Amino acid sequence: MTSPSPDALMPFYAMDILKRAKLLEGQGRSVCHLEVGEPGQPPAPRVIEAVRQALPQPQGYTNAKGMTELREGLARYYEEQHGVSLDPDLILATMGSSAGFILAFHTAFRPGARIAITRPGYPAYVNTLLGLGFGIAEIPVTAARGWHLSGADIEAAYARQPFEGLLFASPANPTGAAVDRAGLADIISTCKRLGVTFISDEIYHGLDYRGPSVSALELTRDAIVINSFSKYYCMTGWRIGWMVMPEALVRRAEILQQNLFISAPTLSQIAATVALGERDYAEVQKASYATNRTLLTDGLRQLGFDLPVSGDGAFYAYAGIKRFSDDSLAFCEAMLDQAGVAATPGIDFDRTDGHGYVRFSYAGTRQSIDMALERLSRFLSVGG
Amino acid sequence: MTSPSPDALMPFYAMDILKRAKLLEGQGRSVCHLEVGEPGQPPAPRVIEAVRQALPQPQGYTNAKGMTELREGLARYYEEQHGVSLDPDLILATMGSSAGFILAFHTAFRPGARIAITRPGYPAYVNTLLGLGFGIAEIPVTAARGWHLSGADIEAAYARQPFEGLLFASPANPTGAAVDRAGLADIISTCKRLGVTFISDEIYHGLDYRGPSVSALELTRDAIVINSFSKYYCMTGWRIGWMVMPEALVRRAEILQQNLFISAPTLSQIAATVALGERDYAEVQKASYATNRTLLTDGLRQLGFDLPVSGDGAFYAYAGIKRFSDDSLAFCEAMLDQAGVAATPGIDFDRTDGHGYVRFSYAGTRQSIDMALERLSRFLSVGG
Repeated sequence: MTSPSPDALMPFYAMDILKRAKLLEGQGRSVCHLEVGEPGQPPAPRVIEAVRQALPQPQGYTNAKGMTELREGLARYYEEQHGVSLDPDLILATMGSSAGFILAFHTAFRPGARIAITRPGYPAYVNTLLGLGFGIAEIPVTAARGWHLSGADIEAAYARQPFEGLLFASPANPTGAAVDRAGLADIISTCKRLGVTFISDEIYHGLDYRGPSVSALELTRDAIVINSFSKYYCMTGWRIGWMVMPEALVRRAEILQQNLFISAPTLSQIAATVALGERDYAEVQKASYATNRTLLTDGLRQLGFDLPVSGDGAFYAYAGIKRFSDDSLAFCEAMLDQAGVAATPGIDFDRTDGHGYVRFSYAGTRQSIDMALERLSRFLSVGG
Repeated sequence: MTSPSPDALMPFYAMDILKRAKLLEGQGRSVCHLEVGEPGQPPAPRVIEAVRQALPQPQGYTNAKGMTELREGLARYYEEQHGVSLDPDLILATMGSSAGFILAFHTAFRPGARIAITRPGYPAYVNTLLGLGFGIAEIPVTAARGWHLSGADIEAAYARQPFEGLLFASPANPTGAAVDRAGLADIISTCKRLGVTFISDEIYHGLDYRGPSVSALELTRDAIVINSFSKYYCMTGWRIGWMVMPEALVRRAEILQQNLFISAPTLSQIAATVALGERDYAEVQKASYATNRTLLTDGLRQLGFDLPVSGDGAFYAYAGIKRFSDDSLAFCEAMLDQAGVAATPGIDFDRTDGHGYVRFSYAGTRQSIDMALERLSRFLSVGG
């Protein structure tokens, strides 16, 4: 397929909803923002102070892999949080996890290779892979099984249609599902047996409400691990993440980084280095998400949304809407226009079954969740 | 060639030399940095002040195309500097020109497509295109013709081997060559006649020592224009650039941006918006490059380097070394290790003939140029 139709790419509806929400706000309307996965708080005060102090100096390119202090800090993070000892030279600072994905795909595969992902899943997975000329294989996961992926699911999908890589997130977007250690070991050993390169998206690590997240690095050194400061450290707009490469691939990743991106934003690297030491601040934010999580999932269930399981991590509720609609996009548009509540239609995450789901983010303030539930209550009683 | 060998990717030697230079500095050695194209000054004071004020607020994602104020400011820039009236909706803020290239290639072409570039040229062109699975066609330009590209050159190259796109920089890296209005019109009309998509890399616009740079937008609306705040506005490490798309392609570029990158760094967008109004500050920097340019090109010629023309723009001297060596990498390594002068081997820019050239950047301070020339004088008299 040298000439895929541009139509193969679908817009990221969350971003379109955000645009529409900002337009409404420009007209003086109030909107509860439950559509984009963004913490409502700035990074920790010490992070801001460090950037303030660095500001007057010229901020040039760093070396392609990133500042040594940052990569050493990340190695310490793996030691302390995961009991894994890691050579900082295997770590690259990236422009958000976004650039990490591009580097991972082009380091480990050639255009045309097929990469497996779960469905539902993060929409940029599909669009980035298709946009860059890779193929995809979707592995469905279901609410009935807590949205969890198993080695058997991978094997079954591979038997239907082989693939060269598996890109897997835990905790996952949009479902919040997280694997435990045994579950991750099952996935990794299945990939190894099939000769499939495992890419572990660990961007929601730290935001786990049922015990600490397990990193793929605790179980293997053959995986590509992608992570970011966006979520746990409240730094979405800073566009700073990192990746850990297997030793055999790190030089190619470095060369690609040199050429594709030069280096990650320097001030963001400085900020990230300090953020690693500010986990107490991050834990305060996490505690507020935990409160929001209970509030939102209980509230949505009472309103008639279908939510058999609460997510294990991240800050999303992926709620079934079959009681109200079979068209999640129309439902989200009406919810935004009539009730002033922005959420993301399930079709962003699942082109097949997503019409029956909506993703609500609870990364914002408690007040915005309260207000959204109140508005939804009125909206649904008028509509029903 | 859908499956280029990983070996087709070469490291960006400038970055490797930078790494080696920093290592030497870590050992207490002094190094004159003439290897990387980075302004030695921070952005304008008002830029820094605006960022300082924004710092305490959460910096979330912006919409994929970038902040409205920034894109409106860019539209004004085209009006004022180029007499071109432009819809801000055709402009996307990008993570440096680096992300702009990735978006341009994947918006206008499909993997496997062949894109023409000049040789010598910016090394990331070749490596990015090959790394992303595109093909390349190299069009040689020569010192004898002032490193200029003509419509006839394009036509001749196309006759040898057709291509779908032409990526062309003016002023150019590493030669500093810039086209005038008639030259650019010749290139654009040739591309149009051949059905070749024209991508205009205008990152060195503003840094022109022989009259104002001509934007492709003055001549056509079918070109993709890529630019950045890195050079003229002294913001390399901020990773912020922009692109202007033809109307027919802008929606696909926006969707790709949403998925591949989400949005450009928010603080950098704020900084860039202010930087557009600080051209007086940028002109002061440019005046110092102009002084350095004379100093360095005269000095290099006196030392025996081959420099038949001084560059029209940017901040590079691409100097022939045939009097000293036929191996630019070995020459640069010796120059760094023995003389403490870092410069970039020509093989970064030209895999065929670059062994006979070295690129010196004059973006740094006058003192660093003076000291480098003094050190080179000793190094060459010892070596020769």
